[in-house]
Amino acid sequence: VRIWVPYSEFVADVEALAPDIEVDVYKGDTVPASIGDVEFFVTPYAVTPEALVVTADMPRLRVMQTLSAGYEHALPYLPAGVTLCNARGVHDASTAELALALMLASLRRIPEFVRNQERHEWRGAQYPALADKHVLILGYGSIGAAIEQRLLPFEATVTRVARRPRPQDGVHGIAELPHLLSSADVVVLVMPLTAETKRLVDADFLARMKTGALLVNVARGGIVDTDALLDALEVGAVRAALDVTDPEPLPEDHPLWDAPGILISPHVGGNSSAFLPRAHRLVREQVARFVNGEPLANVVAGPGVVSSGTPRDVGAARE
Amino acid sequence: VRIWVPYSEFVADVEALAPDIEVDVYKGDTVPASIGDVEFFVTPYAVTPEALVVTADMPRLRVMQTLSAGYEHALPYLPAGVTLCNARGVHDASTAELALALMLASLRRIPEFVRNQERHEWRGAQYPALADKHVLILGYGSIGAAIEQRLLPFEATVTRVARRPRPQDGVHGIAELPHLLSSADVVVLVMPLTAETKRLVDADFLARMKTGALLVNVARGGIVDTDALLDALEVGAVRAALDVTDPEPLPEDHPLWDAPGILISPHVGGNSSAFLPRAHRLVREQVARFVNGEPLANVVAGPGVVSSGTPRDVGAARE
Repeated sequence: VRIWVPYSEFVADVEALAPDIEVDVYKGDTVPASIGDVEFFVTPYAVTPEALVVTADMPRLRVMQTLSAGYEHALPYLPAGVTLCNARGVHDASTAELALALMLASLRRIPEFVRNQERHEWRGAQYPALADKHVLILGYGSIGAAIEQRLLPFEATVTRVARRPRPQDGVHGIAELPHLLSSADVVVLVMPLTAETKRLVDADFLARMKTGALLVNVARGGIVDTDALLDALEVGAVRAALDVTDPEPLPEDHPLWDAPGILISPHVGGNSSAFLPRAHRLVREQVARFVNGEPLANVVAGPGVVSSGTPRDVGAARE
Repeated sequence: VRIWVPYSEFVADVEALAPDIEVDVYKGDTVPASIGDVEFFVTPYAVTPEALVVTADMPRLRVMQTLSAGYEHALPYLPAGVTLCNARGVHDASTAELALALMLASLRRIPEFVRNQERHEWRGAQYPALADKHVLILGYGSIGAAIEQRLLPFEATVTRVARRPRPQDGVHGIAELPHLLSSADVVVLVMPLTAETKRLVDADFLARMKTGALLVNVARGGIVDTDALLDALEVGAVRAALDVTDPEPLPEDHPLWDAPGILISPHVGGNSSAFLPRAHRLVREQVARFVNGEPLANVVAGPGVVSSGTPRDVGAARE
């Protein structure tokens, strides 16, 4: 069974799973000679989509496994009958952690202290704490739940909102947003970018936020209408801490860089030391399922059950 | 019963506790005319010690209540027979929160992003997460426990160290430090400054830390030997995030400002929006105990039980 992985750190562990497993490393550049034999392709994490054109030359491919939660970029390169799995869960710890880091840094004014440090200025005052704050988590999936878990010990309270209401889990639907927004001190965006969520944070949304409330975006830049946010920042209506922007990367001459009350990190939510061990664990588990003929986890397209050594069923639907 | 408080926000609530309570506000400057009647004196939070000389003119004083956990500054102004109470617990949420804010900001490189933002540079890379890190909490009292509570959901592990070992609580003694230090990715200082802890973090301590480990100080600057820390920072042996320094405030020309891998906040651990509601609650509870003749909480010097309307017992010892 030929497997491709993007990190040499994964090779030994994956080969140890069964005697007939052979692993090559493909980082998105040099194409290994085994391309005709690949059955299980763990795609490189952050590459241009072109790195995935190789799937056209993989007649024996059965599984594409992304290392990101998002998989829109992989769909155009998914051959018929091949199963696509995403990395749901792998980035929860890292992304939830960055959401808290951005929130705490912005509220407690760490950016101001960094700038004062550059000027050798010792200047403190009383700043907001996260304690006693009301946080609205917009997109209550696995990362949203991980953010909540980290928030509660800070003596903050949480309101859960998702696209569809789930009353049994205390999750409000997006339709309730207009009356929920006005009571939140912090609004965290962590939902996927879809037609429904595109520019959800527009002038009306921002106007409903409490004056001086903090908007944190660890999801996708396109969920926020950047021009509307700029207007709200300029008049001090809100503050913002963004790990993602629209456009992204933010061009050097973009006015968002210097907007008042903003903290920008360069899309590093999922990319931290927490990533590799969790990605490694997922790949090991998925390859083990594959060679043992067990159902794969995180199937997002293609057949749900697939196993090594049987031919691709081009007509199979997702189970 | 005449009470002095340092914030006008406290007045109405405290006066509502009993019909004969009268409250004046003393912020450390203008001395209210009621000085001869004060029985319960809530001292201003951050003032020069001279603001406390007023106790010499308070013949009816029974209780001095600080709003800080530290009370060394109040002892010289504590008349014989007067009970001194500190604000243990009031700053836990705020200080523990800042410890996490400093830790997360330093690990996830928020200071670097702030500097890149000033230069309009979008530049990410893989940085350390708090997840999977081993954190040593040095000073496992109420703030130490509050730090631990906030740390655990981040998938970090914690080792507890205090001046005296408390094996039943899993707390190691300071004598075990030499072998505990080498396994910690983050060391948080949160113990009081005493003769025993003064310059505890010296060249030997720093040399035992893991290369690149992070030292966080939310306790007192004097616990760290600043020159030794400077040397360790210069060679990249450790990183640091300090809310307190020695000397403090840090003079404009001090080399610590520009040391590599350092983040400095201007002693704002206890001073955040979390402070006032918790201080307010403590003052309300303590004055209620006082007028009802119940034992006071947080007695650190003087008689433990004291009540309004009885004369000072100058010979009384702390219970």
